[in-house]
Amino acid sequence: MYYFYSQNISKDMIVLEGQERLHCVKVLRKKIGDNIYVVDGLGNLFYTEIVNILFKECHLKILSSESIQKKIKVHLVISPTKNHKRIDWMIEKIVEIGVERVTFLICKNSIRKNINLARLNKIALSAMKQTQNAFLPQIDDCMSFKDIFSIVSSKEKYIAHLNRKDTLHLSSVLEHQNSRCILIGPEGDFTEQEVIDAIDNGFKEVSLGSSRLRTETSGIVSTTILNL
Amino acid sequence: MYYFYSQNISKDMIVLEGQERLHCVKVLRKKIGDNIYVVDGLGNLFYTEIVNILFKECHLKILSSESIQKKIKVHLVISPTKNHKRIDWMIEKIVEIGVERVTFLICKNSIRKNINLARLNKIALSAMKQTQNAFLPQIDDCMSFKDIFSIVSSKEKYIAHLNRKDTLHLSSVLEHQNSRCILIGPEGDFTEQEVIDAIDNGFKEVSLGSSRLRTETSGIVSTTILNL
Repeated sequence: MYYFYSQNISKDMIVLEGQERLHCVKVLRKKIGDNIYVVDGLGNLFYTEIVNILFKECHLKILSSESIQKKIKVHLVISPTKNHKRIDWMIEKIVEIGVERVTFLICKNSIRKNINLARLNKIALSAMKQTQNAFLPQIDDCMSFKDIFSIVSSKEKYIAHLNRKDTLHLSSVLEHQNSRCILIGPEGDFTEQEVIDAIDNGFKEVSLGSSRLRTETSGIVSTTILNL
Repeated sequence: MYYFYSQNISKDMIVLEGQERLHCVKVLRKKIGDNIYVVDGLGNLFYTEIVNILFKECHLKILSSESIQKKIKVHLVISPTKNHKRIDWMIEKIVEIGVERVTFLICKNSIRKNINLARLNKIALSAMKQTQNAFLPQIDDCMSFKDIFSIVSSKEKYIAHLNRKDTLHLSSVLEHQNSRCILIGPEGDFTEQEVIDAIDNGFKEVSLGSSRLRTETSGIVSTTILNL
């Protein structure tokens, strides 16, 4: 079962364009009358029939649809790693595991200060289809540390850091509310001041265990735990 | 703080050889009298002083040592992925997160039937040092499904698969004993018969959530949960 993706959806019709049309018509050689599944990235899954194949579009009639509710909304706010491949991998993994929003955070110790948003969106789309998941996360571009607090609307808010030895493990402080956010710092970790600012904005300090995880591993581990 | 690795350890002396000696003497330019940390991969951390630098060896005197106890022993038994890069990444991530033993499993639906053990051991060593962890996992070569049962000695034993919809999530069945093993199948999942064989050998069926995770993602997610 293959999932196609489209955002061009009206009441009873869906249009596949670009790569999605190409994959449907040229790679999988689907024809008029064939049935395919389409997701919109917002939690809706459509069962459709191909009614028309044009040069740049493929028109589908919606036969039935299903709306999937996301039980837990995870917002990962993470500093980009120096090596962009590590970000690529992390995006693939966290989309598989489940994430609603990813925001890249520029801290004092961040070395890389940019990301390739188009590339990450492409990886996220592919991971969503691979896992037969109907949710495509929102990926935000890099944002400065002080601007983060105004955009986080989660009920549970955490900051993971290694500055102190006695912080509790994320899994032991989870309150099991339905929206959860965690801040993950860069290779050189958050500064003391950044941790204080986060606490002042309602974030709780947590640990991700005794190992010194790499940034992208922290992103994957915390997304796994926040989904429990 | 950089950790060196050696298994050539006597009562009060340690010998660094090969890449480790090279890194110590040529890259970090350590000299006689300098202090360095060494781990043995078995949970022991040594604080040492360099006493002699030879052409192929570097001799260290142990000044103090610390033995770290692993609270939870995780044994991951997993089918290799078709793409070997995905195995490499998974090994790096699970060593960071914490794993005592990894065994590669050849199931009926496994496409790849071999792994590069030397390469994986190198990746594991590097990940162990990166995370300032004193444990190097044992990595076993590929093994057939039926031979697995005789080598697993964990108290808690699980098999994750997608064949049934109503299996409970791994995190909800954890018994919190100190040794835990999980079997993760190939891209095409375990066969019905393989699941039955595992159940007959004391393994409990579990799910890793509603997403269809890739094999290597299942390895990372289950290692994270088994460490909780």
